[in-house]
Amino acid sequence: MTTTRGRGRPRDPETDTAILNAALELFVERGVEGTSIEQVAKRAGVGKLTVYRRWSTKEDLLAQAIERWVSDEVTPSAADVYALPPQAIVEHILPAAAEMAASPDFRALVARIMGSAVSHPSLMAVYWRHYILPRRELAAAMLRRAQQDGMVAPDADLDVLIDMMAGAVTYRVLQPDPPDAAEMLRYLTAVYRQAGLYPPAQQTHP
Amino acid sequence: MTTTRGRGRPRDPETDTAILNAALELFVERGVEGTSIEQVAKRAGVGKLTVYRRWSTKEDLLAQAIERWVSDEVTPSAADVYALPPQAIVEHILPAAAEMAASPDFRALVARIMGSAVSHPSLMAVYWRHYILPRRELAAAMLRRAQQDGMVAPDADLDVLIDMMAGAVTYRVLQPDPPDAAEMLRYLTAVYRQAGLYPPAQQTHP
Repeated sequence: MTTTRGRGRPRDPETDTAILNAALELFVERGVEGTSIEQVAKRAGVGKLTVYRRWSTKEDLLAQAIERWVSDEVTPSAADVYALPPQAIVEHILPAAAEMAASPDFRALVARIMGSAVSHPSLMAVYWRHYILPRRELAAAMLRRAQQDGMVAPDADLDVLIDMMAGAVTYRVLQPDPPDAAEMLRYLTAVYRQAGLYPPAQQTHP
Repeated sequence: MTTTRGRGRPRDPETDTAILNAALELFVERGVEGTSIEQVAKRAGVGKLTVYRRWSTKEDLLAQAIERWVSDEVTPSAADVYALPPQAIVEHILPAAAEMAASPDFRALVARIMGSAVSHPSLMAVYWRHYILPRRELAAAMLRRAQQDGMVAPDADLDVLIDMMAGAVTYRVLQPDPPDAAEMLRYLTAVYRQAGLYPPAQQTHP
């Protein structure tokens, strides 16, 4: 590593990165039950207190490590969501979202997160509150706009519709024969289209 | 137990039941990696060979144990699917499906199945081929009929739409604050409605 270490009080971004990377690796390898702050510190090459100074619980650390990996690219900005039509936003995020959703790391993460949801619900609770709920609020804003445009039924349950979109992707990547990036692009387009956030494949003129 | 045991060669249904129950319990407690044929035999109170005589692999045993729990009640018969309109089938299966999907056992099973999909893909592969694919074929038949009735878009990707329905439910039960049976009934109705298998909540006459 080429970092300048040991500066004491001010947080060193490279130390944070090393800790978050180590946490994500251990989580994917061993799950939440098999990961401890001590192991993360050891793998990151830092002291246990260095980790605890930044994250008070294992769940906070893992949730941030997961979120950091789910790149900013695939989450539209709130400004875009409130300014642009849904189709423009979907088109903008689709390529990076397909790339990410088709990666083996994403599959492994989804399996670990889902797999720990019942045996160790505190991770899902922290991740949900801090990271998923804000993203769902953006998705709901897109869907409300699509309702105004007549693309989504006025009586649609938007929480259910968001679950159908997110649930389809997480379910699909855990099935046998997971899609590559090109197939995932087609798949995501079909999901957004079915939800009403993307126009029909073709206007047929018989 | 009131069974007539020890008849030798012919398979004893109660032995099968004991083995399947033990397999399901161990799977929920320990996951697929933590479950072995030996442990299942021990918990069921039978010899290892008794298990192996019936199931050649752990995956075959677990897949059947899971499937047996996912009661027949919530899977419509092929005869019904090809004879009845989708709405009638959905109405018929909804109460039992809601009851099942709201149960803690279902949540634990979903978490274990999803959680093992990447680390131990052979279980998902067996379960998918033997049990999920036939159910998806019935769902596709319902959706094709709904397409004929104009309730599902003619260019809809039915595999994606099935993933959206099944994915929503598996995703929802792993979220914080999982639904009780009454809320799950409302939720499933919204899912089927959004997919086009159930009529809109109300015809508004402004």
